[in-house]
Amino acid sequence: MAKIENLKDLYVHELKDAYDFEHQILKALPKMEKKASSQELKAAFKEHLKVTERQVKRLEQVFQDLGQKPTRVSCKGMKGLIEEGEEYMKNGADPDALDAALILAAQRVEHYEMAVYGTLCAYAKALGHENQAAILHETLEEETRTDEELTKLAKSTVNLEALPG
Amino acid sequence: MAKIENLKDLYVHELKDAYDFEHQILKALPKMEKKASSQELKAAFKEHLKVTERQVKRLEQVFQDLGQKPTRVSCKGMKGLIEEGEEYMKNGADPDALDAALILAAQRVEHYEMAVYGTLCAYAKALGHENQAAILHETLEEETRTDEELTKLAKSTVNLEALPG
Repeated sequence: MAKIENLKDLYVHELKDAYDFEHQILKALPKMEKKASSQELKAAFKEHLKVTERQVKRLEQVFQDLGQKPTRVSCKGMKGLIEEGEEYMKNGADPDALDAALILAAQRVEHYEMAVYGTLCAYAKALGHENQAAILHETLEEETRTDEELTKLAKSTVNLEALPG
Repeated sequence: MAKIENLKDLYVHELKDAYDFEHQILKALPKMEKKASSQELKAAFKEHLKVTERQVKRLEQVFQDLGQKPTRVSCKGMKGLIEEGEEYMKNGADPDALDAALILAAQRVEHYEMAVYGTLCAYAKALGHENQAAILHETLEEETRTDEELTKLAKSTVNLEALPG
């Protein structure tokens, strides 16, 4: 990590961190879709892959607006979250319980993104980059919506199907 | 990780995960308080240490209600989040920019907790443990409030003080 002198440096660092974690998510989602049993959950992961591809493009727009080349810095936080999700998958859980665990893993990821994109929007505004703030806000709204949809899916079916015999 | 057969196993596993991450947070907060420059931010971290101690006690209540001894399973997700926060601290950032980065690190942690406690509440309800759901909900509300307070502090002063010269 280069020395961070001010909010501009921090903003650019966090954009690179986001560019990295979005790519980590792109790699994780197809595995999650494969391991899910519920058709609705499979569809949700498949849909979120498309959403994530759009979010990568939005970050590229922001880098372009800043006159910078999109680059990645390794995001350790997301690495830990994804490893946690993989532990459930490796563990040979019952399929219904695994679906519930996959939703939790995905919601940890969504919330991580909500924290980061919320902050990136605030940094962009403080730095006077209104256009970039608007682009980042679109992603923030998508993450919030995805999280709500996962909560609905968990409460309406997935958690109930995983109840003990 | 023991094999997870159903939602009850997953619930107990996640309670142990939460019991671990709360202890990780108890250890991280005094370092964050020490590194913060803003007096308001120092006070916020100090206050959150007390809140976290209460949250540990609440988890112990839940374990007791379940007739189980409180135990920890290593939470890799929180480990990654805390390492990420430590990177900022090691990096010798400018003090004002470090304050902004510490708020972001704390908000990543808050959001992680919001995802987990929200899910734990839903599991407790699905399993018919209404009393435990109510206890866990108190923590969820505290995390949401802390996150909002950190956003306010960032937007009102900390981000602005970190603006480039």
